[in-house]
Amino acid sequence: MQETHISLAHGNGGRFMRELIDELFVKHLANEFLDTTVDAARIEFEWGYDTFVTTDGFTVKPLEFPGGNIGSLAVHGTINDLSVAGAVPKYLTLNMFIEEGLEIAQLERIVASIGVAARDAEVPVVAGDTKVVARGEGGGLYLATTGFGLRNSRIDLGMCRIREGDVLLVNGPIGDHGTAVLLAREEFGLRGDLKSDSASVFEIAQALLMVDGLRFMRDPTRGGLASVANEIVAATGRGVRLKESSVPIQEPVRSVCDMLGYDPYYLACEGRLVAVVDPHHAASALSAMRTVAGGTASTIIGRVEDDSKQHVVLETELGGERILEELEDDPLPRIC
Amino acid sequence: MQETHISLAHGNGGRFMRELIDELFVKHLANEFLDTTVDAARIEFEWGYDTFVTTDGFTVKPLEFPGGNIGSLAVHGTINDLSVAGAVPKYLTLNMFIEEGLEIAQLERIVASIGVAARDAEVPVVAGDTKVVARGEGGGLYLATTGFGLRNSRIDLGMCRIREGDVLLVNGPIGDHGTAVLLAREEFGLRGDLKSDSASVFEIAQALLMVDGLRFMRDPTRGGLASVANEIVAATGRGVRLKESSVPIQEPVRSVCDMLGYDPYYLACEGRLVAVVDPHHAASALSAMRTVAGGTASTIIGRVEDDSKQHVVLETELGGERILEELEDDPLPRIC
Repeated sequence: MQETHISLAHGNGGRFMRELIDELFVKHLANEFLDTTVDAARIEFEWGYDTFVTTDGFTVKPLEFPGGNIGSLAVHGTINDLSVAGAVPKYLTLNMFIEEGLEIAQLERIVASIGVAARDAEVPVVAGDTKVVARGEGGGLYLATTGFGLRNSRIDLGMCRIREGDVLLVNGPIGDHGTAVLLAREEFGLRGDLKSDSASVFEIAQALLMVDGLRFMRDPTRGGLASVANEIVAATGRGVRLKESSVPIQEPVRSVCDMLGYDPYYLACEGRLVAVVDPHHAASALSAMRTVAGGTASTIIGRVEDDSKQHVVLETELGGERILEELEDDPLPRIC
Repeated sequence: MQETHISLAHGNGGRFMRELIDELFVKHLANEFLDTTVDAARIEFEWGYDTFVTTDGFTVKPLEFPGGNIGSLAVHGTINDLSVAGAVPKYLTLNMFIEEGLEIAQLERIVASIGVAARDAEVPVVAGDTKVVARGEGGGLYLATTGFGLRNSRIDLGMCRIREGDVLLVNGPIGDHGTAVLLAREEFGLRGDLKSDSASVFEIAQALLMVDGLRFMRDPTRGGLASVANEIVAATGRGVRLKESSVPIQEPVRSVCDMLGYDPYYLACEGRLVAVVDPHHAASALSAMRTVAGGTASTIIGRVEDDSKQHVVLETELGGERILEELEDDPLPRIC
């Protein structure tokens, strides 16, 4: 490939597109299932397992940020949706919407990150498609990924299993991804060395599945921890109480939010897992989480209350209470 | 939902997004597998079948055109990729990249078309995701769909099975989709009542699978018939000869191409299937295709030659020959 930037011809189904696929995509994503000459790829599933599927779009701006890029983010995001469903991720498909003029070197860095994240998670990309849109009709690169996973048929998880008194746990500080992307935009004249938390939560989810009393898991992405808590309220009809002093928030996240008027409880995380656990098993859940990579900073952050107040209440450090309402305005478009 | 146009808040994971999903998407796409409150949807596969997966992006402009819209196009396109692989489509996932300012009434027409096309094909949408990007960072609406299908384990199809002397068949006129979309853009001051051929080719593919001697099937989308023929040349090392007098092209397609300098052999079709068949079974393949809806205009269009000339040759009506080279420039961006 001799070009340095993407042109419309890279999306036309002809020679340029074939070169882009063969010389860049296949180079980084090759695996036993990926065959770029077929319409549909054959995949294999195991008998005795339930099959799960999830799909996600990614539009993060900028495309590269401290701690990751849109490619690693897409792989982690899709793996995480399967992981919190209790499934073992098995296969990925990948769509690219490339804007004319994207630097091919940048595209290659992103595709390479997809390759690394997919190999790390042992989840091959088995099918893909590429479209190129004209300058001014895209955002550099948008991705859509679909993931398939298998779950042992006896696993039962869901918001409907949540009971009064259950505790909420999280595996680390919240809002790092949202804040890191915000800083990477450099539009506020702020800089910092905060990194996105973008990572797979698969190991943590698997550790939690070994614990009795696990009710439900979710990754707090768009809309952050407050939105996951509000979803629990909506689904169960019970209140959720979070303790401000227990919710880990890094200092740079806190100060950027203070300066710009954002609320860290609504900022996206991309490597966090919120678990809801029977209170009698909270201690063993916590130690299970802390034994795996990415889980050492796990902590209990709140609990599920009765149905008298169907709100998310944040108990502040000064002893007051603040309602974390369901999100209305978009605090940060193109954050993931 | 009281808004008339999409705003960034429709993509933020909060109330506006939930309303959009519940009141518009679920309304048209509801099925037993779709649960908008979970991270990953459980799907079921049958034992004794091979599982196939395909994924596609759609960026067509305009979003609505005679004969379809980006929604029906996405469903048909994905079903067709599975169909030509010999599989029975079973499930779809759907990603939407919506540009701020899209009229919600238009979005609803498109989602309704997705619902109709998916129900007609008995292929439920089991998972989805929505992202909203700012004005000027999208094209109104881009879609990405992933499809899963099952194929009887004893079916064997592929370009590697193609032999010298095999014949090529197509189920109807070529270039209708590309030309209809081109006319719908109205940028050339041309108008016409030509409709896109966007449709499922599943029934035709199934009819062909009943015939002995079927080697390979493909749907000629981006890059058109000429690109499928060039792929066969590249994969087999043999020439392909098409007979101009046998390739059906509608008069409006021919005249628009003449006027604007396009070549109908490279224009996208979205409801056409090219089959390669053992010459001894060509007649029965042709009658099988002609018995099903969408296949009555099926015809033999060419044959596979020896390996002396690795080209696609078009035998013109005047007895000359024209080489249909692999596509380089993009004749029509955002055609599908």
